[in-house]
Amino acid sequence: MKQKRSCTFGVCYYPEQWPEERWAGDARAIVDFGIEFVRIAEFAWSRIEPDRGRFEWAWLDRAIATLADSGLGVVMCTPTATPPKWLVDERPDILPWNADGNPRRFGGRRHYCYSSPTYREETIRICEAVAARYGDHPGVVGWQTDNEHGNHGTVLSFAPHCVHAFQQWLESRYGTINRLNEAWGTVFWSQEYRSFADVEPPYRQVGRANMAQVLDYKRFSSDQVVSYDRLQAEIIRRHSPGRWITHNYIGHFWDFDHFALSRHLDFPSVNNYPVLMTDRRPAFADESRVTLARVGHPDCGPFNFDMTRAQGPNRWWVMEAMSGPADAGYQNTNPAPGMIRLWTWEAFAHGAEVVSYFRWRQVHYAQEQWWHALHRPDGLLSRGGHEARKVSDELDQFGPLPPPDRSRVALVVDYEANWMIEVQPHSEWFNYPRLVQVFYAALRRLGLDVDIVPVGADLAAYDLVAVPTLPHVSDEALRAFEGCRGGIVFGPRSGSKTQDYQIPLSMPPGPLQRHLPLRVHAVESLRPEIADTLAWKGGTYRAGLWRDYAGADLDPEASFSDGEGAVWRNGNWHYVAHHPDEEFLIDYFEHLAQERGLQTTRLPALVRLRRRGSYTFAFNYGTEPFELSMAGQASFILGSSVLHPRDVAVWDHTGTRPRQGTASHSGSLKNSHKHEEIA
Amino acid sequence: MKQKRSCTFGVCYYPEQWPEERWAGDARAIVDFGIEFVRIAEFAWSRIEPDRGRFEWAWLDRAIATLADSGLGVVMCTPTATPPKWLVDERPDILPWNADGNPRRFGGRRHYCYSSPTYREETIRICEAVAARYGDHPGVVGWQTDNEHGNHGTVLSFAPHCVHAFQQWLESRYGTINRLNEAWGTVFWSQEYRSFADVEPPYRQVGRANMAQVLDYKRFSSDQVVSYDRLQAEIIRRHSPGRWITHNYIGHFWDFDHFALSRHLDFPSVNNYPVLMTDRRPAFADESRVTLARVGHPDCGPFNFDMTRAQGPNRWWVMEAMSGPADAGYQNTNPAPGMIRLWTWEAFAHGAEVVSYFRWRQVHYAQEQWWHALHRPDGLLSRGGHEARKVSDELDQFGPLPPPDRSRVALVVDYEANWMIEVQPHSEWFNYPRLVQVFYAALRRLGLDVDIVPVGADLAAYDLVAVPTLPHVSDEALRAFEGCRGGIVFGPRSGSKTQDYQIPLSMPPGPLQRHLPLRVHAVESLRPEIADTLAWKGGTYRAGLWRDYAGADLDPEASFSDGEGAVWRNGNWHYVAHHPDEEFLIDYFEHLAQERGLQTTRLPALVRLRRRGSYTFAFNYGTEPFELSMAGQASFILGSSVLHPRDVAVWDHTGTRPRQGTASHSGSLKNSHKHEEIA
Amino acid sequence: MKQKRSCTFGVCYYPEQWPEERWAGDARAIVDFGIEFVRIAEFAWSRIEPDRGRFEWAWLDRAIATLADSGLGVVMCTPTATPPKWLVDERPDILPWNADGNPRRFGGRRHYCYSSPTYREETIRICEAVAARYGDHPGVVGWQTDNEHGNHGTVLSFAPHCVHAFQQWLESRYGTINRLNEAWGTVFWSQEYRSFADVEPPYRQVGRANMAQVLDYKRFSSDQVVSYDRLQAEIIRRHSPGRWITHNYIGHFWDFDHFALSRHLDFPSVNNYPVLMTDRRPAFADESRVTLARVGHPDCGPFNFDMTRAQGPNRWWVMEAMSGPADAGYQNTNPAPGMIRLWTWEAFAHGAEVVSYFRWRQVHYAQEQWWHALHRPDGLLSRGGHEARKVSDELDQFGPLPPPDRSRVALVVDYEANWMIEVQPHSEWFNYPRLVQVFYAALRRLGLDVDIVPVGADLAAYDLVAVPTLPHVSDEALRAFEGCRGGIVFGPRSGSKTQDYQIPLSMPPGPLQRHLPLRVHAVESLRPEIADTLAWKGGTYRAGLWRDYAGADLDPEASFSDGEGAVWRNGNWHYVAHHPDEEFLIDYFEHLAQERGLQTTRLPALVRLRRRGSYTFAFNYGTEPFELSMAGQASFILGSSVLHPRDVAVWDHTGTRPRQGTASHSGSLKNSHKHEEIA
Repeated sequence: MKQKRSCTFGVCYYPEQWPEERWAGDARAIVDFGIEFVRIAEFAWSRIEPDRGRFEWAWLDRAIATLADSGLGVVMCTPTATPPKWLVDERPDILPWNADGNPRRFGGRRHYCYSSPTYREETIRICEAVAARYGDHPGVVGWQTDNEHGNHGTVLSFAPHCVHAFQQWLESRYGTINRLNEAWGTVFWSQEYRSFADVEPPYRQVGRANMAQVLDYKRFSSDQVVSYDRLQAEIIRRHSPGRWITHNYIGHFWDFDHFALSRHLDFPSVNNYPVLMTDRRPAFADESRVTLARVGHPDCGPFNFDMTRAQGPNRWWVMEAMSGPADAGYQNTNPAPGMIRLWTWEAFAHGAEVVSYFRWRQVHYAQEQWWHALHRPDGLLSRGGHEARKVSDELDQFGPLPPPDRSRVALVVDYEANWMIEVQPHSEWFNYPRLVQVFYAALRRLGLDVDIVPVGADLAAYDLVAVPTLPHVSDEALRAFEGCRGGIVFGPRSGSKTQDYQIPLSMPPGPLQRHLPLRVHAVESLRPEIADTLAWKGGTYRAGLWRDYAGADLDPEASFSDGEGAVWRNGNWHYVAHHPDEEFLIDYFEHLAQERGLQTTRLPALVRLRRRGSYTFAFNYGTEPFELSMAGQASFILGSSVLHPRDVAVWDHTGTRPRQGTASHSGSLKNSHKHEEIA
Repeated sequence: MKQKRSCTFGVCYYPEQWPEERWAGDARAIVDFGIEFVRIAEFAWSRIEPDRGRFEWAWLDRAIATLADSGLGVVMCTPTATPPKWLVDERPDILPWNADGNPRRFGGRRHYCYSSPTYREETIRICEAVAARYGDHPGVVGWQTDNEHGNHGTVLSFAPHCVHAFQQWLESRYGTINRLNEAWGTVFWSQEYRSFADVEPPYRQVGRANMAQVLDYKRFSSDQVVSYDRLQAEIIRRHSPGRWITHNYIGHFWDFDHFALSRHLDFPSVNNYPVLMTDRRPAFADESRVTLARVGHPDCGPFNFDMTRAQGPNRWWVMEAMSGPADAGYQNTNPAPGMIRLWTWEAFAHGAEVVSYFRWRQVHYAQEQWWHALHRPDGLLSRGGHEARKVSDELDQFGPLPPPDRSRVALVVDYEANWMIEVQPHSEWFNYPRLVQVFYAALRRLGLDVDIVPVGADLAAYDLVAVPTLPHVSDEALRAFEGCRGGIVFGPRSGSKTQDYQIPLSMPPGPLQRHLPLRVHAVESLRPEIADTLAWKGGTYRAGLWRDYAGADLDPEASFSDGEGAVWRNGNWHYVAHHPDEEFLIDYFEHLAQERGLQTTRLPALVRLRRRGSYTFAFNYGTEPFELSMAGQASFILGSSVLHPRDVAVWDHTGTRPRQGTASHSGSLKNSHKHEEIA
Repeated sequence: MKQKRSCTFGVCYYPEQWPEERWAGDARAIVDFGIEFVRIAEFAWSRIEPDRGRFEWAWLDRAIATLADSGLGVVMCTPTATPPKWLVDERPDILPWNADGNPRRFGGRRHYCYSSPTYREETIRICEAVAARYGDHPGVVGWQTDNEHGNHGTVLSFAPHCVHAFQQWLESRYGTINRLNEAWGTVFWSQEYRSFADVEPPYRQVGRANMAQVLDYKRFSSDQVVSYDRLQAEIIRRHSPGRWITHNYIGHFWDFDHFALSRHLDFPSVNNYPVLMTDRRPAFADESRVTLARVGHPDCGPFNFDMTRAQGPNRWWVMEAMSGPADAGYQNTNPAPGMIRLWTWEAFAHGAEVVSYFRWRQVHYAQEQWWHALHRPDGLLSRGGHEARKVSDELDQFGPLPPPDRSRVALVVDYEANWMIEVQPHSEWFNYPRLVQVFYAALRRLGLDVDIVPVGADLAAYDLVAVPTLPHVSDEALRAFEGCRGGIVFGPRSGSKTQDYQIPLSMPPGPLQRHLPLRVHAVESLRPEIADTLAWKGGTYRAGLWRDYAGADLDPEASFSDGEGAVWRNGNWHYVAHHPDEEFLIDYFEHLAQERGLQTTRLPALVRLRRRGSYTFAFNYGTEPFELSMAGQASFILGSSVLHPRDVAVWDHTGTRPRQGTASHSGSLKNSHKHEEIA
């Protein structure tokens, strides 16, 4: 077995899905591939406990032994994402309920309600059993809790037991019902509650629900996810000393607070499916779904990585890396040749410790039979498998990668900000992920590395801080912003709400007025077809979707054609009073970066850079070669100064390494079908 | 206190939403603003009766005293639109049910079913209490029942108690079940009923429901709204002698029969939100939602006004006038500078007695926190507030306005006509409000004032009568049409159904055949992309969406390119056998007007005129100035012969008034943020 | 009474819907029209049995007598599509349930669940009664079971009783629960079942359901339709010796297996509404719904006919032929003048024995009052009626038509193939009917007649066989394909699944690999806007929506621009590895036809040919005349060598008939409203 690398590979493997006689061969092949970790058992409850209390450990003992004996580190999972049928039949009160007022049913996965006391009981029971059995197994190096919390719309549930749980949560938040009535403003439509026992989840109401109530239901639901997962982590920690615990988050997912959940993990993980996320996530424009269908948006994976990095102690995994076409999009494309390799390098460039591919071999039955893998159902290496192995070979030539540095640019994101926008989007076309993406994209189009940080994080070290929006600016948040000596740019609707989802009586941007002496006196949402423009330093830019109308004793930094302020500035504080266009933000951030001596590189729409120590990684999502003039005389560790389409280059600006770049990914991948190998 | 005006202002005010110490100051400021009336208490049930039978009158006594003592006339409301939580919990059978077969829930407003016997009991109880308490209060000048009947899809409900109420209504309509079976044609799909006890509301059926049944459910539901509201009016009348009663209708709303409800009111009121209604109502084309996003369609408010005027004895209020951005559209725009003033003048031009703004001060919490007001949450005057006060100042210069005259042009509309189209639209693109809007717009593009009249109204005085469609032509309707000596123009589908929603055996247009010797032998609906054309007097026009194919012994007045008749004429009777294009109707109505010596003025798409006695009002919704050459040498009371964008002009054709026009709204509004005032 | 023809007419008539005094006159007029058959009583249950057990036969006895005495052959129906209200009230467990978990209700039609044991009891009772009464009536020549099985989404139901029926069906299919667990791959998400009693219908699950389970629910539901209908056929056969039994299928309908149901019929029938089907069916492109709105797609009726012909022993009826505008589309157009005649001739050209118009007279009430007929509600002949009578006159001049020959071209279709695509379309834009339509259209654009055949049918006689897709290739299917000596062309996804809906371990195209040595290693779906191209023999073609990526030891016959194979060929076996464009398929099939000496004629997009014996029929759906040069010197029996728009021509290539062609349909139809006749 070769020496462990600083960046390395894992893979998702399901022994229960293959005949036992294949396990040993698979384990050897996994090791030979250059993979060090194998994640198992997250959907295996019905095999572990076929009937209540009858545990079948023998097969799993043998599977783990086979994998561990081959030298693989086993990442063990709790199987709670898929309660078996006998459990659902015995205790149907574990099921989640839809907002239509009816229970959801068995037949898919994640068919449980986070607030079900019964399911918490059952979770404790099965987690105790699994953790007790394998907690101190020498082959087990760490744990994943559950699988993809919140997927399939499961964060929110409206089951009968949710009512009481919500009431308790409210009582704990507000103390007295009068405080709740004040916070929600229930006097408004005669909605005053006499006790917490009166309050219910918001659904099927006539007309609009109280927005603070809806927001609190989202907060409560997020807390339920976190406390549910913590329950598992506590059990594992008790039984499995010295092993780490992680969870595999869904990418570009905003329904619960990952920062809050990550607090009880050792480090976070994420699932990364760029073409699928580009196809489905609101962050990306419809145009991208067509023009970037086979490569994904160039910020899609990177944002996912930077977001995950933000959750933890500079340590994170890609737990599921896309290795071929998926089957959950409106369309499901075949990643263009080179993309599996590109995305893998991109994850390492952003600091991933392990890239664990989903999955070793494509399963030929059930729900995900067209979710492609490193190997095809016939056992041959897939195109993605070839590319993954190429990265493995390339990595061998690298030696240890430098640890990722902190960037000089921060992007402040907040889950609650997303919920605050969701409860009152004000138009069909305004959403938080899209606004965040515009800010993130503009920074990356300037060749900047971006640290994503939560609200309240120390910003002292940053030269440029972007806050796409933050409706509620807490004292803690304000203190952090005030600690920033760089340029700090707030997007529209920042400071527009209090903690209780009320308009601040000083008017938006509320607490930010200490530094931005504005009063937003009217807000406006617009259809995408409406084309306002703004003028700034001689340029004219599109501006749409949103406008904050503000009065100020300042002159605006940029104005709309009707003279109203579009951007306001006071020293290093900036307020963008509209939903900005990417092109405007690029120019604006470039200007601020130049003020701060922060070096930028204007990149084409489909090229991105990312640094890791003295290394610079370049990625080309486009179809044209790109000349990496910014590399200057640096020596290339991978690729060369001409960055080919869907290719990666890495150079070391310290210039101390004499190594030649390896060739760009070869054309032989295109013909992989003629050179297939058994695995 | 200054002298009361013939046209004046009101405002919506919610004492329960503000600290009591602000009431007196608010009352003074309201009076200073030039406002005479204040509407209160329509959502205050939970404050009036916090628990069953425990009435808290003191706060409301003080609020009314404060307002009345300042000289304001109080418009008191019944609080029935928002039954409190304790009532819903005690008597859940007040809730409305959706057509999915499940109850709707507490959490918004209007969460009651018009047919609930329980809610009628509770309504009587609370209305008796409120009316007994304040009925003879000297400060109370009038009453509003409930709030926005039918909003949030509440006209139709499918609760268990609806079944019996519907059966009783049917028995009263049809007498015997055989008569119902004949009327509905239940033999058709073996749907014959043996007794009224067999019949149910139409929902969740397999395939299409019987259309006469659906129509009757709409008629029944409308009647339930009317009888529910009448219940309130009777109580108020008993307790509050000498005060008037009104209801604030939603604009461009067709789900129940406003004419029928208005019969028990003293006069009707309406809520007017032009940019919101342009954004959401089917009457307006998608293009308008983009190009007119910040001004609204130039017929949107006016139709709303003329429709309300039609309900009453030439006396009506705008109960809620838009004073800034709303928050209930697909988008929510900020009305362009000048529009609040323009819409206010427009309401007066169409005869409003009072324009009551929604609302005095924007509330900073709960559901409508981004529904802007005359004042901002911080207490400063909003842009809309500035404009409203400008109108108040302008009005002071006017003296009494002449009373509105009857027009020489009538537009016949009918709620049942809308329901008849709804139960069988025949295509996804045909709706009654849009058809009505095309007729109304064409008349107004000719500079004509339009009286909207119900079916059966006396038409003798009109030179031109437009009937966009009237599927069922009753004897009474026919007599009224026959009383018209002017040109009378029927749109497609007129006379196509009997009272029982059957095709007349003489074929459509049924009873109209006495004057229009046609037989419509086939009907056709078309996608909007299908471009048929018609020829008339040398011109060619677009014609789409609908065609009636008719045989006649007449030659058609206008024909489609395939030779089929598109318009038929017999003397002063006209039949438009398609869904006409606005451009065609303008030319056609102009021709008819000239025949009758009715003077017309072709206006640009975004300019409108409206007369009131000897005064002519002109409104410019566009972005270009317009030369008011039609004013000739008349003296301008407001504005001048160049009508600026988003501006108003008024001239007196009697020319007897020497007064100079005031200036167009000043540019200072744009800079209102620099000149804010406390209110 | 004139002599019976080899091709003749029927009509749908509803005595219960008209006063008895009109029956005799109607019967005479029907006979005079040239009609020989009349279909009755399919919605008459509430008249036949107004209360449980109280049968009212007298009226129906008289109706049948009246019709039969006039010389008409009566097609009697079972009235099971419309159970009366008293039955629903007594036994609500007959109702179907939606996938939302709530029952559907009375009020339309087809409100029964195929799996309801109660409804099967009631069906037996009413069918016994009707069949016993009229089974040996001399006027009754045949029977129709029920009406339009599956319409209004009734094939799938989720009622409580469905659970047990599904479990029984599964037990009978799989024998043991372990076999089911293997087939469905329930180990995948911990979904293993311990007994058949655990398994439930797939609905309201969280995330995606097991696709094999969904497929089995579709198979089960189709079987329920078939066994339900067979129940009726068995009763009728027992009581009505010597009469035939048919069912009137809906056109372009894929929810249950018509081949399976047809096995217990004597011959199949179909309802044919070309403009309605073009408007609503997924087979046709949105563009067709606009440009062909009044004529329907030129393959719409023909596919419907060929599909019905495929079900039976070369004998089939059009049971409901469109005779004017319908009222069930998103739009409802008036068929262009000439189309009723054209569609009638088209049905005869494709081999219809009887064209039975829907309906004799338009009913003026209830659900279908704007569904036009041969006669208008006022009794006059409609435009469609005129055209139908013209065909009747033309037919008199023909003498017996030659029997339809077998074609040299086959199109293999399969209902299960549709379900297999439906359970995993892989994109929002891939559907089976559209794919089938592209193959069918390409063949017909080459002037070829097409035999539609089920999977497993003998293909030995065909020169060209098209298989748009066949996901599961059974042994029987493979044997049939191997029996084909002509070119056989498979579409994408063929052979991609086993019988248990698993990917074959040899990879797709699975069993076809014996002849097509390919391995499809990745699949890809694409949005319609994504424009890939392929190159073949110097031409370039659009290719989108789907790609199979295959490895092979063959060189591809056609390739995409990225070099991947787009079409593969091995001898007479062809595999189209994408969703082909119609233009490509036309060129490709032309090439194959030329190889086989099969004569083709490239036709314009809106002209079609169809042969019947020595006769060739030509149809012009377009607006330009078309020169029938392919007719050469043949004598025209109908029309002439210039084929006018919306006209029909027929020539005899044996040239033995001296008869002159009749005139094209005269312009007098346009003026039919001036020359109306009473009927």
